[in-house]
Amino acid sequence: MTDSSKLFNIKKSSSGSVSSVDDFVAIEEPLEIRVEEKNVAIVMRTPGHDRELAAGFLLSEGIIKSRHDVFEISECESLNTNGSGKGNFVSVLLSKDVKFEFEDLTRHVFTSSSCGVCGKATIESVMIDFPKIEDESQICSSKIVSYPDKLSAAQTTFKKTGGLHASALFNPDGEIVVIREDVGRHNALDKVIGYALLENLLPLSDHTLLLSGRISFELMQKSLAAGIPTVAGISAPSSLAIEFAKNSGQNLIGFLRDHTMNIYSGNVTD
Amino acid sequence: MTDSSKLFNIKKSSSGSVSSVDDFVAIEEPLEIRVEEKNVAIVMRTPGHDRELAAGFLLSEGIIKSRHDVFEISECESLNTNGSGKGNFVSVLLSKDVKFEFEDLTRHVFTSSSCGVCGKATIESVMIDFPKIEDESQICSSKIVSYPDKLSAAQTTFKKTGGLHASALFNPDGEIVVIREDVGRHNALDKVIGYALLENLLPLSDHTLLLSGRISFELMQKSLAAGIPTVAGISAPSSLAIEFAKNSGQNLIGFLRDHTMNIYSGNVTD
Repeated sequence: MTDSSKLFNIKKSSSGSVSSVDDFVAIEEPLEIRVEEKNVAIVMRTPGHDRELAAGFLLSEGIIKSRHDVFEISECESLNTNGSGKGNFVSVLLSKDVKFEFEDLTRHVFTSSSCGVCGKATIESVMIDFPKIEDESQICSSKIVSYPDKLSAAQTTFKKTGGLHASALFNPDGEIVVIREDVGRHNALDKVIGYALLENLLPLSDHTLLLSGRISFELMQKSLAAGIPTVAGISAPSSLAIEFAKNSGQNLIGFLRDHTMNIYSGNVTD
Repeated sequence: MTDSSKLFNIKKSSSGSVSSVDDFVAIEEPLEIRVEEKNVAIVMRTPGHDRELAAGFLLSEGIIKSRHDVFEISECESLNTNGSGKGNFVSVLLSKDVKFEFEDLTRHVFTSSSCGVCGKATIESVMIDFPKIEDESQICSSKIVSYPDKLSAAQTTFKKTGGLHASALFNPDGEIVVIREDVGRHNALDKVIGYALLENLLPLSDHTLLLSGRISFELMQKSLAAGIPTVAGISAPSSLAIEFAKNSGQNLIGFLRDHTMNIYSGNVTD
């Protein structure tokens, strides 16, 4: 298991008095994702669960749809010779029946990023066409208000560093299926949906995703790629996240804290 | 002036009771950045200050270095014909003496993103070579502890929506030179350094940058592109941000709140 935090000796200043202390900091390092031996992206991520990250990234780019589409994902040591140790990469081999055009990827994905949307060549290419949520499910408020405490209890690295985003997937019984922490919120989500893909859990009907921070368009699109009907966040959604949810049929909850919530899309019951 | 927030009718649930309210939400929309008539990136941003965003993006990608390198930046209406109104773009024309190879950009920037680093083709291309900070400046703790309150007072859209990151530039007298808010923290910083570039204020010696959130490698690199010697954040830095600051000669402060701070790089005086 790769470490996700690192000890630094720092100075603390409080009301003018300065002391020297050791402090845990969340690790950020580049990861190269290769598909069929070709580089497709560099993501700045917290090490650990890199196979899941690659699987989630390719799922949300529309390249793969299920475990069956993946022949092999291997984590490899640095290709770099400078000894920096910061050149880790994952190599993905696809199943034979998966259509993978590197040129298309160059135009639509390669120019994309860990952010899913930024860097794309055209505004049209930002929107990927995933199936909408067909079964309208109601938000059960009495169950969901308990999720933030469960998330908080499970955020082990955040407790050490104060420097990580978290994504957690809850099953219909309100239990955490998987939680991932990362310096990038898109990475934390890619790791969650990549885990679900590799464990053959897709689509994630009846599951709820809880995000530790703000909810952007991109995070909604990634959650739809995994078939997640309900997305909740501790903080605010963006306008485009709300519009996306209304169109995709997803439930969208924001400011889920202190036993209250805002419902931006969907219907709620007690 | 473009609106940065939008009113939605939402449901609020509190202890089981549900009410309908109007609520302001931060706007997120795609922006296409064109250089010499070619698309170079799509960024998901909060509308407003798009010329600054483009200038800051190109500065931190190493394409332009000063106001002189920009011939013209124009904001244009949507090229889209679908009437969605979400296809705004900025078009940048460079001065004649600026070397701009679209192929290089395709390899090193086009494959990049608003995130500055993700999506790049190689790990080496993540690192851009900007001049280090030569004049070692001390952190004046009694001055800097007052900055978070000044930032908070100036975050007008955050107060309405709770959904925006902020970047603010302070001059040596502790006054805010410019503050920008955006759904993307990299955009907020690009707008700040783009403003400084367009106002001919670079390099920003003796200035301090204050970020509302966490500090990643990418934000350090962008601030170095503008020559900013001191970067402070309300929240945690990543490990790579600290290592970057130690190498670049920048001062790096985290957890700047309640009159205390952590100093990860640099020296502090009272």
